[in-house]
Amino acid sequence: MVKVGVVGATGYSGAKLVELLLNHKETEIVYLGSKSYSKMKFQDIYKNFTGIDNLILKNQDLLEVSKKCDVVFLALPSKVAKDMITQEILDNTLIIDLGADFRLEDPNDYEKWYKATAPDFNILKQAVYGLTDIHGDKVKSTKLISNPGCYTTCSILTLAPLVKTQLIDLDSIIIDAKSGVTGAGKGLNLGSLYCEANENIKAYGITTHRHTPEIEQELTKLANQKVMVQFTPHLIPMNRGILATCYAKLKDGVTSEQIDKAYKTFYKDSLSVNFLGKNKIVETKYVKDTERIDISYTIDERTNNIIALGAIDNLVKGASGQAIENMNIYFGFDQYQGLRKFASTPL
Amino acid sequence: MVKVGVVGATGYSGAKLVELLLNHKETEIVYLGSKSYSKMKFQDIYKNFTGIDNLILKNQDLLEVSKKCDVVFLALPSKVAKDMITQEILDNTLIIDLGADFRLEDPNDYEKWYKATAPDFNILKQAVYGLTDIHGDKVKSTKLISNPGCYTTCSILTLAPLVKTQLIDLDSIIIDAKSGVTGAGKGLNLGSLYCEANENIKAYGITTHRHTPEIEQELTKLANQKVMVQFTPHLIPMNRGILATCYAKLKDGVTSEQIDKAYKTFYKDSLSVNFLGKNKIVETKYVKDTERIDISYTIDERTNNIIALGAIDNLVKGASGQAIENMNIYFGFDQYQGLRKFASTPL
Amino acid sequence: MVKVGVVGATGYSGAKLVELLLNHKETEIVYLGSKSYSKMKFQDIYKNFTGIDNLILKNQDLLEVSKKCDVVFLALPSKVAKDMITQEILDNTLIIDLGADFRLEDPNDYEKWYKATAPDFNILKQAVYGLTDIHGDKVKSTKLISNPGCYTTCSILTLAPLVKTQLIDLDSIIIDAKSGVTGAGKGLNLGSLYCEANENIKAYGITTHRHTPEIEQELTKLANQKVMVQFTPHLIPMNRGILATCYAKLKDGVTSEQIDKAYKTFYKDSLSVNFLGKNKIVETKYVKDTERIDISYTIDERTNNIIALGAIDNLVKGASGQAIENMNIYFGFDQYQGLRKFASTPL
Amino acid sequence: MVKVGVVGATGYSGAKLVELLLNHKETEIVYLGSKSYSKMKFQDIYKNFTGIDNLILKNQDLLEVSKKCDVVFLALPSKVAKDMITQEILDNTLIIDLGADFRLEDPNDYEKWYKATAPDFNILKQAVYGLTDIHGDKVKSTKLISNPGCYTTCSILTLAPLVKTQLIDLDSIIIDAKSGVTGAGKGLNLGSLYCEANENIKAYGITTHRHTPEIEQELTKLANQKVMVQFTPHLIPMNRGILATCYAKLKDGVTSEQIDKAYKTFYKDSLSVNFLGKNKIVETKYVKDTERIDISYTIDERTNNIIALGAIDNLVKGASGQAIENMNIYFGFDQYQGLRKFASTPL
Repeated sequence: MVKVGVVGATGYSGAKLVELLLNHKETEIVYLGSKSYSKMKFQDIYKNFTGIDNLILKNQDLLEVSKKCDVVFLALPSKVAKDMITQEILDNTLIIDLGADFRLEDPNDYEKWYKATAPDFNILKQAVYGLTDIHGDKVKSTKLISNPGCYTTCSILTLAPLVKTQLIDLDSIIIDAKSGVTGAGKGLNLGSLYCEANENIKAYGITTHRHTPEIEQELTKLANQKVMVQFTPHLIPMNRGILATCYAKLKDGVTSEQIDKAYKTFYKDSLSVNFLGKNKIVETKYVKDTERIDISYTIDERTNNIIALGAIDNLVKGASGQAIENMNIYFGFDQYQGLRKFASTPL
Repeated sequence: MVKVGVVGATGYSGAKLVELLLNHKETEIVYLGSKSYSKMKFQDIYKNFTGIDNLILKNQDLLEVSKKCDVVFLALPSKVAKDMITQEILDNTLIIDLGADFRLEDPNDYEKWYKATAPDFNILKQAVYGLTDIHGDKVKSTKLISNPGCYTTCSILTLAPLVKTQLIDLDSIIIDAKSGVTGAGKGLNLGSLYCEANENIKAYGITTHRHTPEIEQELTKLANQKVMVQFTPHLIPMNRGILATCYAKLKDGVTSEQIDKAYKTFYKDSLSVNFLGKNKIVETKYVKDTERIDISYTIDERTNNIIALGAIDNLVKGASGQAIENMNIYFGFDQYQGLRKFASTPL
Repeated sequence: MVKVGVVGATGYSGAKLVELLLNHKETEIVYLGSKSYSKMKFQDIYKNFTGIDNLILKNQDLLEVSKKCDVVFLALPSKVAKDMITQEILDNTLIIDLGADFRLEDPNDYEKWYKATAPDFNILKQAVYGLTDIHGDKVKSTKLISNPGCYTTCSILTLAPLVKTQLIDLDSIIIDAKSGVTGAGKGLNLGSLYCEANENIKAYGITTHRHTPEIEQELTKLANQKVMVQFTPHLIPMNRGILATCYAKLKDGVTSEQIDKAYKTFYKDSLSVNFLGKNKIVETKYVKDTERIDISYTIDERTNNIIALGAIDNLVKGASGQAIENMNIYFGFDQYQGLRKFASTPL
Repeated sequence: MVKVGVVGATGYSGAKLVELLLNHKETEIVYLGSKSYSKMKFQDIYKNFTGIDNLILKNQDLLEVSKKCDVVFLALPSKVAKDMITQEILDNTLIIDLGADFRLEDPNDYEKWYKATAPDFNILKQAVYGLTDIHGDKVKSTKLISNPGCYTTCSILTLAPLVKTQLIDLDSIIIDAKSGVTGAGKGLNLGSLYCEANENIKAYGITTHRHTPEIEQELTKLANQKVMVQFTPHLIPMNRGILATCYAKLKDGVTSEQIDKAYKTFYKDSLSVNFLGKNKIVETKYVKDTERIDISYTIDERTNNIIALGAIDNLVKGASGQAIENMNIYFGFDQYQGLRKFASTPL
């Protein structure tokens, strides 16, 4: 059994990790960390669980934790993890960081978008960006996996085949993304109150959202040339799910056959990608609580634009589920061990 | 592998059955019935599923279906199943009826509350009321299991220990129940429209709801004397879940120790009952999509009332999950095979 | 023009007061108080408003405020107002307190239910309980109006005619109440987060909710004998509205004609009471944003219980709207000046 | 008093019209038409209303209705009104059509997008497109006002100043729009069920939505050259509101001062336009139930795109409210008579 620790176990993605680990046959939880709820039982906070009286939240030093775990997941706010990770810790254990600190390869990008000092470069350069459907093969060779963001996972996977094959104009990409409220986390912010978020829709972080450079970094690598995107997130009155509506100008003469082939080729080994094809509609409810992305597209013959749609669960494929995928790959388990393929019926 | 058929497979409880059966290790779906969607693929209606192209909806005669199935689930509106079941069908296969037609033992009760001719008494008398936590032992000895209603499952299980031990005045029971909108089914009714049900709460079926005689029948058996209840359901703007807030006058001198003992004794073998005890609060989100009922209670020293709370998922413990439990008991599988114990985190 | 101040203007009931005052033809807002948002424009917090740049939030002493206002509304948490009100302030201005501190006439009740020192009795005894449909005639003769709570307004008005005429057993009253999330206020509490309250229902404050003694105080006065009630509130995933489902044992031989007459007589002068009569169903959406209570009832011939239903908007009839009614009565304006009669269509 | 009729009075926009007319001081409702609810009282269907027992739904011929009304509003599905309007009817009364049949000036566009025969050209050419903030001056000179669609009102008003001044590349416009479920009307469609629309987001009508040619027609007129747009609507789990997130490439060197000036100039006489300016965020809740559009924008210096946001209430500014504006202009009343400026607080 792989010994696992979770730091930040009571936030939404931390708790989702705990749930997935409890359903996993090859892991044993040996540490659950929480500052706010230290010494409490996990099941007294997440009352959907019973019979796990032994899981007590603690607030131990990461170095201590690293000594008793084969893998430690960090589910922390941005700017926290970067100052916690040392080489000694990485020598002790595999770190899978669900936060943002090690996602941007260029420290300048980090400092520009996060307005903070970049992580130690000696640590940063060891990080593998754990977008499993693209970088799964690199995961085994590191001790520091940087798990992708929710919007980024959805946006990159929806666009990757089009960018890789350059069937679209790379300077025409617009991503209009919509997220449920769990995306804002469990923090006590006014905008996350029921009566503030309910019966409303708004955009936020226009031109400044920190997932932008992460999307651009990955699309740039795929295209082998600098790619910029217009990324606009919106807050939707629902708990879970992200829909990315992606617009781009098709290159002249591109056919739907070419597009279908681009997706099928790119994702031929990706069991979590459910490519629906042309003129289909994805919906977030169909991927809720699953390790799956549904992708479809439509071509507008009038404007020569392609509208590609991607839908994921922000907490699963967009966070904790993908972190489990990374763990599974690293330890040689079935990549989808402990993860769900199908959403509950109905919703 | 047990060969299974589902008649009415595209309604909410029918589709939930299909989902549960797909996760079940001992069953093989050999028939999915639907009038409205005949010849369509199930996965083209419930797009959360993929890779089950072979599951095509059909509209065959129940007698035909009974010949190829070891068990047939009926997920039909009330008043339909009673005219479909014959002795020949029961000789062929086990029927688990999720509808209401065979729940009331007294044909007069059926005719009074359902305003329709009661089922053939020779068939009716073979029916076992499949409330697993109470009648699980009788399930093996019949070919016709009548699966309880959603409100009834929640109400009876919440009150049963108190009624059985007569710690409460039996003529003082009030059940104020609240249900999510899936309880109204997938029918195209004005009241089920998003904009009608959203941001609203209302009571309905006051004094006339058909789950009333079902609750009374079972509580009467437990008490060994006639029990009547005041049952009032309400519609809540959420998809899933039932909360039953049950009020009764405590008999003089009854202590919480006696109440705790009553529950623990009554449910000592029921793994799906999560008895939280005194002064706790149940919430429907903690049992969503699980085969579980959470029960708690509070005593009011001022009024000498007990307020007992029960929470279930109306489509799982309150319908399809309990039907699977019945199948599992009948065929000698683990009672909770294919059923979930813990709700998704968060919600 | 009546000069008005609002202390606590940025909470939900404070802001609703501001809205109602802006629509009122006889008032001029001269003070808006807020600790947290002092010096900000009201319209920068409630962006539904424009063109009121002149309304700047301030944090002044209540004595100062009392000198420039004809009436001051207090929309504060409980236990705050009681230490702010002095005789000098009451000599200066009319105080309409939307909080709970002056609602309970017996200081012992306050200390028992609020676990805090009762208000100065010389101040307390001047307070008039401003439940307009019952005590409207006493409002003109005080400088301290204690505005009723939301649950209490709904519960008392639904039950008052039955209690007054003693058509029911007074020791049999059960009130199962359901409220939208604005009832919990704008405070940053975990339970008020969108993802915590959404898709869920729970009871809370069972046997201990502070609106209980307030309901009992008023029903006791109506009955001329001590009345106790079983009051259980629930949290519903919607923004606005309270539904009170009230149960009581009918006295032998009571007819629906008597009940109809009791309601019609009791509320013959109450324009905000919409009595629907027997076998009707009230819904919270029909009273949203209005100064109205919808009341209906059903008799169960089997159990001899009456189930009476009341629905209000917790922030309007249950808080700020009723406060405006009190102001209107005090100053001799039309009682419903500035208040809406009809909910928006649809919802 | 202006005598008014409403045909299709029980759908969402028809009923909203009735509400607005009841609050209007210069109108008298003399006819409410409904096929499905003929002979019923309006207040028995919309129970938010009381005291209007006299408003009985009828199913009369439009010619008859036109003889007794000064103005008749048609709130009907598309393709119905075009076969009802005759010259005789227009000679009798003013028609304000909330449907789509007379919105497209070119019959070929109608036939292409609506897959139906275009309206009689002699009638069609009399129609004025009643987008009040742009064509208000033409309203008085016709007997047939074609009220704009909801998405179109929001999209056109958000983009008009940019298009008129050509500060953007006209071939780069992308409109990603999001609507609450009332936009789908009160019809009994599976997708409009609570449990289908709740906790979900999806796009629909991609490249084919019928509001596309309507937007293009008006932007083309403003630009004096052919404009095409990429329009993608989405369904959001809320009752009311439309948010249009509009993307376009800025022409080189365009400054925010120029943009501010373009909006302020274009809307200098439009009281319903609330232009928030640069780097602000609009939210649908702030315009709920009002005759208002909130508009803001952000410039992305990196991509040189402008992201302009518009928010309206689809049933008010996007349908019935604008129809009332048109009536007010036609009859010389204050343009905003009977219409609300501010949303309810909170939401």
